[in-house]
Amino acid sequence: MLLAQLGVRYERREVDVVDRSNRLELLGRLNPGLRVPTLVFEDGSSLGESNAILWYLARGSRYLPQDPFAAAKVLQWMFFEQYSHEPNIAVVRFWVAVPGAPVVPDAEIEARRAAGYRALDAMERELGAREFLVEGRYSIADIALYAYTHVAGEGGFDLSPYPAIGAWLERVAAEPGHVSITA
Amino acid sequence: MLLAQLGVRYERREVDVVDRSNRLELLGRLNPGLRVPTLVFEDGSSLGESNAILWYLARGSRYLPQDPFAAAKVLQWMFFEQYSHEPNIAVVRFWVAVPGAPVVPDAEIEARRAAGYRALDAMERELGAREFLVEGRYSIADIALYAYTHVAGEGGFDLSPYPAIGAWLERVAAEPGHVSITA
Repeated sequence: MLLAQLGVRYERREVDVVDRSNRLELLGRLNPGLRVPTLVFEDGSSLGESNAILWYLARGSRYLPQDPFAAAKVLQWMFFEQYSHEPNIAVVRFWVAVPGAPVVPDAEIEARRAAGYRALDAMERELGAREFLVEGRYSIADIALYAYTHVAGEGGFDLSPYPAIGAWLERVAAEPGHVSITA
Repeated sequence: MLLAQLGVRYERREVDVVDRSNRLELLGRLNPGLRVPTLVFEDGSSLGESNAILWYLARGSRYLPQDPFAAAKVLQWMFFEQYSHEPNIAVVRFWVAVPGAPVVPDAEIEARRAAGYRALDAMERELGAREFLVEGRYSIADIALYAYTHVAGEGGFDLSPYPAIGAWLERVAAEPGHVSITA
């Protein structure tokens, strides 16, 4: 979504997210975490971690505040996304909605679902008082959290008790240059 | 550790990490994730997420590279720390070493321990070729990953097969201004 909004051209190469046996061969020289997304530049250098990539691409644009404290708040939300949101909301969706995903005990799914709702509670508290997550202006913090929030329903999360999140999802989708990020 | 190395004075307030029932009351206005650490400034503003705090405090110092690509690599390692390292290495240590921590099924401990070793494998691959994680220079990426790596043994992790990590832990501890970060 950010690449589209910045007008940056790129080539996308798909990687198997179920069979990960070739990850060291495929990504070992590109990303220590052996994860996708991994961004490879034309000069062969590379960068891993979705939110580090967002930060690097957004520098100097309207999608990352210039003010250091506001930029730190953007990072705060992106670390929240990786620690409290993605491991619960995205991972539960992966387990219940992606063919071939590992079979996981119900108790673990329910524990992660409860933690996912706590992450949504945090977002709802904040978004009740502002249009976007940081200083009321659309930024990469919103992009990072929009990604798995807008498909949380596919993981069995009920967003109907979250009206502020619902209104925010609509505002994000109304941003200039917004594109669908699901197939 | 960074506050000590920067020579910044601060007051530390301890928060219960086992009984979290008062977190919304204590942190609701300060940190949407309701987690510690949360940094509160003299003007009452606040910042959550350990690595967002490190980034904000380190700006303009020798602990965060000026070059944007190197700074993005620092963030890459800090997101790796939050996604692939802390939830496995720190959380397993919490479960097995902290009195009052939740009782967790052995299978989940072992799954997280295996994931923790994969995070250590990633660090070992990188540190075999360089002195510190980003551009061979000590930075907040090293501080972020030193924290729970240097006490991984308390969680039952065996670091003896990781000689590059062992040498790096010694280099971090030899940095000017290094202080113990465990009680």
